[in-house]
Amino acid sequence: MPQAVIAIHGGAGTITRAAMDANREREYTTALEQVLLAGQRVLADGGSALDAVTEAVRLLEECPLFNAGRGAVLTNAGTYELDAAVMNGATLDTGAVACVKRVRNPVLAARAVLDHSEHVLFAAEGAEAFAEAQGLELVAPEYYFTQARHDQWVRARASSGMALLDHDAATLAAQAAQVAGGAADPIDPDSKFGTVGAVACDAAGNLAAATSTGGVTNKQVGRVGDTPIVGAGCYADDVAAVSATGTGEMFIRTVAAYDVSAQMRYAGLSLEESARRVVMEKLPAIGGRGGLIAVDRAGNVTLPFNTEGMYRGVARVGEPVNVWIYG
Amino acid sequence: MPQAVIAIHGGAGTITRAAMDANREREYTTALEQVLLAGQRVLADGGSALDAVTEAVRLLEECPLFNAGRGAVLTNAGTYELDAAVMNGATLDTGAVACVKRVRNPVLAARAVLDHSEHVLFAAEGAEAFAEAQGLELVAPEYYFTQARHDQWVRARASSGMALLDHDAATLAAQAAQVAGGAADPIDPDSKFGTVGAVACDAAGNLAAATSTGGVTNKQVGRVGDTPIVGAGCYADDVAAVSATGTGEMFIRTVAAYDVSAQMRYAGLSLEESARRVVMEKLPAIGGRGGLIAVDRAGNVTLPFNTEGMYRGVARVGEPVNVWIYG
Repeated sequence: MPQAVIAIHGGAGTITRAAMDANREREYTTALEQVLLAGQRVLADGGSALDAVTEAVRLLEECPLFNAGRGAVLTNAGTYELDAAVMNGATLDTGAVACVKRVRNPVLAARAVLDHSEHVLFAAEGAEAFAEAQGLELVAPEYYFTQARHDQWVRARASSGMALLDHDAATLAAQAAQVAGGAADPIDPDSKFGTVGAVACDAAGNLAAATSTGGVTNKQVGRVGDTPIVGAGCYADDVAAVSATGTGEMFIRTVAAYDVSAQMRYAGLSLEESARRVVMEKLPAIGGRGGLIAVDRAGNVTLPFNTEGMYRGVARVGEPVNVWIYG
Repeated sequence: MPQAVIAIHGGAGTITRAAMDANREREYTTALEQVLLAGQRVLADGGSALDAVTEAVRLLEECPLFNAGRGAVLTNAGTYELDAAVMNGATLDTGAVACVKRVRNPVLAARAVLDHSEHVLFAAEGAEAFAEAQGLELVAPEYYFTQARHDQWVRARASSGMALLDHDAATLAAQAAQVAGGAADPIDPDSKFGTVGAVACDAAGNLAAATSTGGVTNKQVGRVGDTPIVGAGCYADDVAAVSATGTGEMFIRTVAAYDVSAQMRYAGLSLEESARRVVMEKLPAIGGRGGLIAVDRAGNVTLPFNTEGMYRGVARVGEPVNVWIYG
């Protein structure tokens, strides 16, 4: 019997130490610890890996520090479009939603798809209609708003030279100047990605993964990244469970999450070596930046990333939780 | 140098011989041959595998016999939602669209994403906005209409016991009775899936794949199947190119298309054996039905399916084309 374990991430990128003072660092560290403790509690109470990752990602969505749920980034239209997926390694059952604009917790919509639909992926209005029919909480777009993400969006638009509406321009320029000195998200706004995720192995040796995101700042409306794509940003089977974060397009093109499992199953590599090859070799070969968290059914955990930092942590049942930010 | 080759499929399922008289069979056979000849011509003229599969799938979308583009099936709302993907094995570049309702040729929208966007997947209105900005032809929903698909939808709704609007019920019941004897799509409406696709190896040994679909009859609005998911319904790298058709949810859960390549790369299996394991072992293990077409860089082709039939064909440059329907 493996020792039950959960690992989480809150996004990878150029996490600038300059923007990260002691208070800010404590905020992130505390948030990660609280989520890990909650996931650890699910597992300690005999809960499944699937329930543990769902709860951990729900809490990460609730926390405005991370780019998922409340705290999500804005599209180039100034709107929010969220994606999430969850997968049960024991059964290969999966559920995912893409481009939802009104669901408070996209991971719960993904879980409802897994539990209650013959389909596995719903997009846009159809995804919202499904979530609503399942009784999930819908919110107004303002719910997702955080000043830090808004400021990040203003900077992204300014640096991309994108035209602003006249009545917005002065206000936004003033805001941009005001926040340019810092106080915003410590992930460098020039590497504008972030995602949250969790992987777990429960006491029965079953694996599960969940991933959720607001996407990339100033993304084109309708863009879907790797998060809701089974095999790319989220995957679990009876060999490994994986949740990824980074430049989503490259994770799709390399089928990054499934590739960790495939290398273990077909080439006999270890979890750590499979994950290392994906993150340190296959992704960089096409310009992919980011990282992933992965667990195997023996309870081994690996957390590789090719960026300056990745918000991440691990909690084994019966042991203290551990969180890290930098490399 | 491999001999350039293209293979195509027009969907798999319980293709009932009862519904397939000689005229009907000739219609399908001729359509498949015409598409193969066009793809073969692209390759013979020195065109890339990517151009050959794009053109072949565009022609399959134009043909009302197949469930993609014109001839697409209807959702449970009586609307059309189309998906497509294309991938260049030489570069791992890919483009895909999901849930488009007004794009005449979804595969051309997918190709435009591949050629002109930093993103790889767009959904719903965002996908249409992108296609429109790229100058692609938009159509009214009536463009996709075919009587056979409409009748199939009527039967599906009747057999699912789904409530019909009062003013529709009598008409639809009458239509259903009228068409119950046949004349519709020879793919059994009880196994309501179908997709088109192409894979090719060009004279330079580069591989490409493209897939396009209207989805499954009477699907819930917003449902996305395996077709636009890189690694599930469409995949190409420097080892293999794969296009799939079948119960899409199971192809997503098994990462079916990429798994063909992964088993070759990591386990050293042949193209044929890798594809056989996916279609005859991994998919049936979770109730997956359908098939796939695959080509490797030596120009080997395999066309396995676990259903009664699959519309399919192969054309090598300089040789006659071959098409088949049954097992």
